Amino acid sequence: MALFSSLTPAFIAIICILLGVILKKTNGEKEKRETKSKPLSRPWVDEDLKDGTDHHLEEEEFDEEWQGLDENVAHVPFFAERYSEAEMIKRSQMFYELLNKRRSVRFLSHEPVPREVIDNVIRTAGTSPSGAHTEPWTFVVVQDSYLKHKIREIVEEEEEINYKKRMGDRWVNDLKRLRTNWIKEYLDTAPYLILIFKQVYGQLPNGKKKTHYYNEISVSIACGILLAALQNAGLYTVTSTPLNCGPQLRVLLRRPANEKLLLLLPVGYPKKDATVPALTRKPLEDIMVFM
Amino acid sequence: MALFSSLTPAFIAIICILLGVILKKTNGEKEKRETKSKPLSRPWVDEDLKDGTDHHLEEEEFDEEWQGLDENVAHVPFFAERYSEAEMIKRSQMFYELLNKRRSVRFLSHEPVPREVIDNVIRTAGTSPSGAHTEPWTFVVVQDSYLKHKIREIVEEEEEINYKKRMGDRWVNDLKRLRTNWIKEYLDTAPYLILIFKQVYGQLPNGKKKTHYYNEISVSIACGILLAALQNAGLYTVTSTPLNCGPQLRVLLRRPANEKLLLLLPVGYPKKDATVPALTRKPLEDIMVFM
Repeated sequence: MALFSSLTPAFIAIICILLGVILKKTNGEKEKRETKSKPLSRPWVDEDLKDGTDHHLEEEEFDEEWQGLDENVAHVPFFAERYSEAEMIKRSQMFYELLNKRRSVRFLSHEPVPREVIDNVIRTAGTSPSGAHTEPWTFVVVQDSYLKHKIREIVEEEEEINYKKRMGDRWVNDLKRLRTNWIKEYLDTAPYLILIFKQVYGQLPNGKKKTHYYNEISVSIACGILLAALQNAGLYTVTSTPLNCGPQLRVLLRRPANEKLLLLLPVGYPKKDATVPALTRKPLEDIMVFM
Repeated sequence: MALFSSLTPAFIAIICILLGVILKKTNGEKEKRETKSKPLSRPWVDEDLKDGTDHHLEEEEFDEEWQGLDENVAHVPFFAERYSEAEMIKRSQMFYELLNKRRSVRFLSHEPVPREVIDNVIRTAGTSPSGAHTEPWTFVVVQDSYLKHKIREIVEEEEEINYKKRMGDRWVNDLKRLRTNWIKEYLDTAPYLILIFKQVYGQLPNGKKKTHYYNEISVSIACGILLAALQNAGLYTVTSTPLNCGPQLRVLLRRPANEKLLLLLPVGYPKKDATVPALTRKPLEDIMVFM
């Protein structure tokens, strides 16, 4: 106790002030948490710490059907196409059979693909619903060989680091079984690379930031529709989420700071000797619960 | 300074120990942040604080194509259907036209829908790619009137609180323009409610938790495919993310603790007098960048 007895009052005062500041901060954080009186899902939390586009939009935790928020938007009658029950069953069966042929293909050929098809699949993805009709997506389609190769260099360099340093043993073992590594030839060979960016915020006419509610879920849903459109057109891809490359690829492709890379899809035809892992899908009873 | 001079050594000791603990904690957090040497996207971070299923899976921040990780999975030749260029253009155009007719519809009729169509659209959603082929989705299809009404009660009660207390003025004003409120009749009238849960983790044969990589993006992509399948079958829905209801609905539907509600889709035919907001979609040049 000798140490404490010899402390000067001034030093004690400094300690108390410091303690006060720290406790206040801690309480402030606690309070902030407690105001969340109910569990909240925050799909837009993005922890990309170095990209300078982090936004914690606490006030936007809400629910709403994903419709538009245009000022004074009019409501108009809606007329839907109606099929017979037999047609519905047949159409749903055929669509299932078509989509069930989709596989992630890592071996894509050089063969060119009509640009018009790419335009159409992107248009189709753009019909997706989005939080508050913000349509928070940018589809960057890269056909230029030089750019594709630059993308490959960035992705492979980061991947090699991931494989060698960042990934845990378990994951590296999993990868060994998949016989995959950081070499991604398809980034050169695919006629198109589609890089999908989520716009984490937009701009209001007055220059202020406009929140893009649920941007990640919205853009992912749009990507699901894009995958369906690609499959319908006879094009193949592999869904990839290039770790750590987002900021570099954003700069390379000159996208603004409010955009963050979500997915990278190389698009083309499978090579003649393409292979896929012999995977199966869960049967209906394992994914659906009927009540 | 009289206050500090009169402090007993024992009290000073307590203060110093507290200070030490707090500083240590603060440093620990800082250190943790700094070990993230590169920007990392963590789509699986879920801040649902009360559901008891939080998992911060630091080691799983990685990139990989979304293929399967079954042990020693064989690779097999892949043969893709091939269309002529003219067919591809036509198919992609027709699919765009079909999907472009999709609208979020809040006014759904009581008319029954063939169960087989529902089975097929869920099967189709199940063809989605997923992080490491974890297929981390559960589609709960509710047809039972009592359950639908219970769901409505839970959602409306929370929504009313949201509207009245939690949402900011800006959002409430936006909603006024949309003429929407917390009354969600479609939860009773739609012949089916599809509640989509993401499985944030699974179980290995040895009982240990199995990470579901990128579960939220994966399940959202599957929902995009589901929306395409519904539209293809002539069924309508409105994409909703019921705020704060996840845990209550999970318990009501007896889903395990590793599952979290992502979306709720009421499914059926539009009512005869259904209306939709007169919204437009961004043109291709506003969503696509070609390089």
